[in-house]
Amino acid sequence: MNSPQRIAIIGAGHVGAAAAYALMLRGLVGEIVLIDSDPALAEAEAADLADANAMARPVRIWAGSYEDAAGAQIAVLAAGAATHQSQSRLSVASASAEIVGGCVSRLAGAGFAGILLVAANPVDLMSLIAFRQAGLPAARVIGTGTLLDSRRLAQRLADRLDVDPRSIDCHVLGEHGDSEVAAFSTARVGGLTLEAFAAPAPMTDHQALADRVRKDGYRIIAGKGSTSWGIATAIVRICEAILRDERAVLPVSTLLTGQFGIDGLYLSLPCVLGASGVERVLEPPLTRRETMDLQASATALRNALPLVGVAKAS
Amino acid sequence: MNSPQRIAIIGAGHVGAAAAYALMLRGLVGEIVLIDSDPALAEAEAADLADANAMARPVRIWAGSYEDAAGAQIAVLAAGAATHQSQSRLSVASASAEIVGGCVSRLAGAGFAGILLVAANPVDLMSLIAFRQAGLPAARVIGTGTLLDSRRLAQRLADRLDVDPRSIDCHVLGEHGDSEVAAFSTARVGGLTLEAFAAPAPMTDHQALADRVRKDGYRIIAGKGSTSWGIATAIVRICEAILRDERAVLPVSTLLTGQFGIDGLYLSLPCVLGASGVERVLEPPLTRRETMDLQASATALRNALPLVGVAKAS
Amino acid sequence: MNSPQRIAIIGAGHVGAAAAYALMLRGLVGEIVLIDSDPALAEAEAADLADANAMARPVRIWAGSYEDAAGAQIAVLAAGAATHQSQSRLSVASASAEIVGGCVSRLAGAGFAGILLVAANPVDLMSLIAFRQAGLPAARVIGTGTLLDSRRLAQRLADRLDVDPRSIDCHVLGEHGDSEVAAFSTARVGGLTLEAFAAPAPMTDHQALADRVRKDGYRIIAGKGSTSWGIATAIVRICEAILRDERAVLPVSTLLTGQFGIDGLYLSLPCVLGASGVERVLEPPLTRRETMDLQASATALRNALPLVGVAKAS
Amino acid sequence: MNSPQRIAIIGAGHVGAAAAYALMLRGLVGEIVLIDSDPALAEAEAADLADANAMARPVRIWAGSYEDAAGAQIAVLAAGAATHQSQSRLSVASASAEIVGGCVSRLAGAGFAGILLVAANPVDLMSLIAFRQAGLPAARVIGTGTLLDSRRLAQRLADRLDVDPRSIDCHVLGEHGDSEVAAFSTARVGGLTLEAFAAPAPMTDHQALADRVRKDGYRIIAGKGSTSWGIATAIVRICEAILRDERAVLPVSTLLTGQFGIDGLYLSLPCVLGASGVERVLEPPLTRRETMDLQASATALRNALPLVGVAKAS
Repeated sequence: MNSPQRIAIIGAGHVGAAAAYALMLRGLVGEIVLIDSDPALAEAEAADLADANAMARPVRIWAGSYEDAAGAQIAVLAAGAATHQSQSRLSVASASAEIVGGCVSRLAGAGFAGILLVAANPVDLMSLIAFRQAGLPAARVIGTGTLLDSRRLAQRLADRLDVDPRSIDCHVLGEHGDSEVAAFSTARVGGLTLEAFAAPAPMTDHQALADRVRKDGYRIIAGKGSTSWGIATAIVRICEAILRDERAVLPVSTLLTGQFGIDGLYLSLPCVLGASGVERVLEPPLTRRETMDLQASATALRNALPLVGVAKAS
Repeated sequence: MNSPQRIAIIGAGHVGAAAAYALMLRGLVGEIVLIDSDPALAEAEAADLADANAMARPVRIWAGSYEDAAGAQIAVLAAGAATHQSQSRLSVASASAEIVGGCVSRLAGAGFAGILLVAANPVDLMSLIAFRQAGLPAARVIGTGTLLDSRRLAQRLADRLDVDPRSIDCHVLGEHGDSEVAAFSTARVGGLTLEAFAAPAPMTDHQALADRVRKDGYRIIAGKGSTSWGIATAIVRICEAILRDERAVLPVSTLLTGQFGIDGLYLSLPCVLGASGVERVLEPPLTRRETMDLQASATALRNALPLVGVAKAS
Repeated sequence: MNSPQRIAIIGAGHVGAAAAYALMLRGLVGEIVLIDSDPALAEAEAADLADANAMARPVRIWAGSYEDAAGAQIAVLAAGAATHQSQSRLSVASASAEIVGGCVSRLAGAGFAGILLVAANPVDLMSLIAFRQAGLPAARVIGTGTLLDSRRLAQRLADRLDVDPRSIDCHVLGEHGDSEVAAFSTARVGGLTLEAFAAPAPMTDHQALADRVRKDGYRIIAGKGSTSWGIATAIVRICEAILRDERAVLPVSTLLTGQFGIDGLYLSLPCVLGASGVERVLEPPLTRRETMDLQASATALRNALPLVGVAKAS
Repeated sequence: MNSPQRIAIIGAGHVGAAAAYALMLRGLVGEIVLIDSDPALAEAEAADLADANAMARPVRIWAGSYEDAAGAQIAVLAAGAATHQSQSRLSVASASAEIVGGCVSRLAGAGFAGILLVAANPVDLMSLIAFRQAGLPAARVIGTGTLLDSRRLAQRLADRLDVDPRSIDCHVLGEHGDSEVAAFSTARVGGLTLEAFAAPAPMTDHQALADRVRKDGYRIIAGKGSTSWGIATAIVRICEAILRDERAVLPVSTLLTGQFGIDGLYLSLPCVLGASGVERVLEPPLTRRETMDLQASATALRNALPLVGVAKAS
């Protein structure tokens, strides 16, 4: 008999706890361990989740240690500095870098050899830092990236076009943040481009939709102080693709090695996700403008590297 | 074609938002409307939930008004004054009573004629207040009551007896609070009493287990400032029993009319829950001691009535 | 409180019973009624399903009459003549036409006003016959069409390309049968064409994959005497899109009214499916060759009309 | 990363194929292998299931060999001689014994070391035969037993008492067959006995309900030639309890070692089921009459031993 699958969640704040709740309701794993620098918080969240679990499919949930995380298939890194109001994700980079670096070094110290899923913001920089410290192959250090932005865009397009968002195949690429790129040219609905689907009405509001998606996170933070449900659901989706070895195509933040001329940075492209993590990075056929925007997004991230103590030349 | 089923959640705090998230993941209804005295909070929670929804089965989620709630099958009342640290649920009764009274009167004013599920604490008193103001039959005003406590007890017994909590049929009765009664005598595991199941080891720790259950909520609040996952899951379970007309037996807070000599108070007994709400109140065969404890729980609640502006004689 | 949603299944053979089982496990509706010209068969299937239901979420399942079907949201027509070995679906057209005509006329006589989902083969001709007898708008008479073939193609491509079939957006169009058209040109994986995804290896086996999909049904029938699980799952998927008003894009058989120059025939194109049935028929940007193949598929169907007693000129 | 969990299903007839379908829809394992003495049948069922799978969560399904079964966590034995019309399950014992013996010896020869779940009828005798040939501890050879009968009884009681069958805790014990014993005295609904729940109406129809349950299988076979959905769902329930290490209490057929004075026979009592198989056999507090009926059931089974080539004295 296999031992039960385990996910470790590092950071028992809003995102980590909501991800644990969704994982539990989904019955995806047998064991969930919560780790937090505030052990009383982790204990309380684990107790609250265990209460919920008594009304769901049985999963073992507890507040534990990095040693407990060592044997996990996936460690979700949900710790990090919070953004406030209209602060950009980059603005908290330095504070988050310190937190993430500390967590990853303790995780590595405990002998973790699974897949590290980084959800801390700014997620592309934090994934890079995690990769540098984890001692794991790049395929096994993944950032949640623009999966959430991509599904937000699908939802906006769905509202606009009056169709199920799940029937819209579209991707937001690049930074999970202000420089992100909505790749409208590759979007399809039932085999049709957005323009063909919208016809005879013209699609003139691409930019407005992309802006709206870019600002959705800020608007949620302004209203409730944080985001939780959307990102938690994205975390669960990525974990499912990995644990079930789906080889699903999802846009996540991964180490680029020359794609679109970008090298040595984490940012989001559509990736094939399976049991080994990122099994393949896809290069969709972007327009010239989209390609330039993607490269500009890379430049913005590269310029932010000193904020997190990484030399630009890397 | 039926119009889609709708649940209204009044109060977009931790409990209300978590309940909306779980309802969405469960795909139980077609529409969820969030209502809060802070419309920006309701908007932000709805936007965050909609982000999550773009990765799940489609449900329409929005921040709305009491008019939107009027057509709902179920309105969940998750507003109320928060308890802090080791405050008893009764201590916030007066503040909560005002909030609950206001919400219910606006709901009634909008013409709501569905089932009102009260999750605000102290839940038994708040359910009584809601019943008095809602203009609905008692069967259609239900408190979440001791469903959560009962499943907590099952979880504790499961840990103790090394068996699946879902295989333990047990009930906590009376007040959802300090005077609650764990009805150990009626508990069964596979047709065995707890004593028979535990044998040859003796079961001498009933009181310790009951105390632990009684204090679980306090401990969670001490650690994370509120409870959310457990109570949200209980809300979803009750909504499911109603919406699917299950006629499931669940311990919830209902208006007693003479059971165990108790009359005119809301407190929890096992109830048959279906499309009409509480379709039947069961009277389990309690021991003499359990019966006295239950009556003492009723007395504690009756004594608290003046706190919420209800004359004791009622 | 809404009355529970009901699906009627006409024909309690392998397909109808398997569809009922999957609907029950999915918990999609509150009521399922089975109708068969052999009432003892319908009774036995309903009893067997009810046994299963006692271990699942409660659904009311019974063997009933066309009167019971009258109030259903959806009636699934799973009756029809069986094909044997390598018989083409068209070869049983005449026998099936009589059965389908009889069922639909009894359904219409009972006052059915929901959505009629035709799964009897040859499904495109049977859908046309059902439409002519049902007295319902074309949007409300739908054939299961090439949904199954499309997902079969996705599975074959997934095996070939080593990627999750759910990440492949592809459609088989036209007849559900020998003349069907795999629209490879519009297929996408993560925004890439099949050729781009397969590169640097060439994709030279389109025709072999399409042939394999075309023959899958025959091979299954040769081995087990019928098909059931695939078509049952397709039925459930279509019912879900309708009952949850998803507006999902799925390839189903619908009455064409000039698309690609085809008029007055049922055949499959990608459709937006929601509470009203087929809410929109999409015209994907086919190549010249694919368009010609689609028109040839229409001609094949038109030539078969006399087999089912419909004048060609219709 | 753990290797994916695998279930092997030996016998691709109605029961085995339906169980594979339900396992697939439930997403419980990563791999399902079908094995049949008719490889073309297994191939066809696997292909039909794979078609369905392209519309569900990805599971690998294939027609394979005993070597493929060797590494499975669970092997479900669904092969055996079919019963016809009103033949008792015992009447096919001899033919089934030969089939079951052959399958188990090939499975053992391939080195299988998982849990063997026997669904072939007469299930108690076939489980005993499987246990003797498998070379596995008794805890790891389990018969589906009276789980199905127990849930049938719950469904009948639910219809009678107008309550959710899942809220009824009741067990049918002994042989899965004509001598089975409905243990009414230990049944509970919300902590109440059946008599208390039914009051003030008397419960005078115990025997009629038990007879109906006993004959349900015959009636289904008379109408459709076999049973499938109920037993398939029971198989999935048992597999889930084992794979998720639930320690759930379910009535299954297990080797008795003195309980109620019965020794050396497989028959059903409530058992704690977890990752190791039957982790504990419970002895519910039966009435004197129920105990005698259970012992009579054991005697009936013991008398049938020669039919399957086992000496009575065993």
